[in-house]
Amino acid sequence: MDENNFKKKSIEVFECPVTYTMSMIGGKWKPIILYLISKGANRFGILQRGIDGISKQMLTKQLREMEDDGILDRKIFAEIPPRVEYSISEKGKSLFPIIDAMRSWGELNLAG
Amino acid sequence: MDENNFKKKSIEVFECPVTYTMSMIGGKWKPIILYLISKGANRFGILQRGIDGISKQMLTKQLREMEDDGILDRKIFAEIPPRVEYSISEKGKSLFPIIDAMRSWGELNLAG
Repeated sequence: MDENNFKKKSIEVFECPVTYTMSMIGGKWKPIILYLISKGANRFGILQRGIDGISKQMLTKQLREMEDDGILDRKIFAEIPPRVEYSISEKGKSLFPIIDAMRSWGELNLAG
Repeated sequence: MDENNFKKKSIEVFECPVTYTMSMIGGKWKPIILYLISKGANRFGILQRGIDGISKQMLTKQLREMEDDGILDRKIFAEIPPRVEYSISEKGKSLFPIIDAMRSWGELNLAG
């Protein structure tokens, strides 16, 4: 299945709140990105170095989607060169209990 | 991103328990399939009719993955023609609190 199948453009997807939530954190990268930003990795280069195997294009795409979804805030500092910092929005933080529950379930079942 | 990016064959994926959990319920179809089976839609044809837009091939693929992952139990009744019934395993049921949390989050944020 292609990620496009559950992106927010589809009306069908919006009918199901579970799918909506999945579109926020689904896939391979978004939980990792959220985790790293929550630990202070707030800039593009730091994130890219921190995530094994992610391309610049993929990281750009994921960050933009999460910004569009209101999960991340993106702040541009008027410096030369301009500095961009990411932080997790309140909406994004409200996903943490779900991600934590997924982590607990995964740890339990990976061990078993 | 391709679904293969977070299938269980990858060692990298297994390192992250969140990604492992995501591989169980991620994508567009699995939460819907789990929901319908939990409501008694325990046969292939019933599921296919109940899920708008799913192809026979896709439903077969999703059911097989969930069976391989131990989320679904598949029972074959020795009748003519053979009857196959799906049910949710204990492991699968233990995912329900997570799916419920995703539903609540989605309802809250879709409304807002």
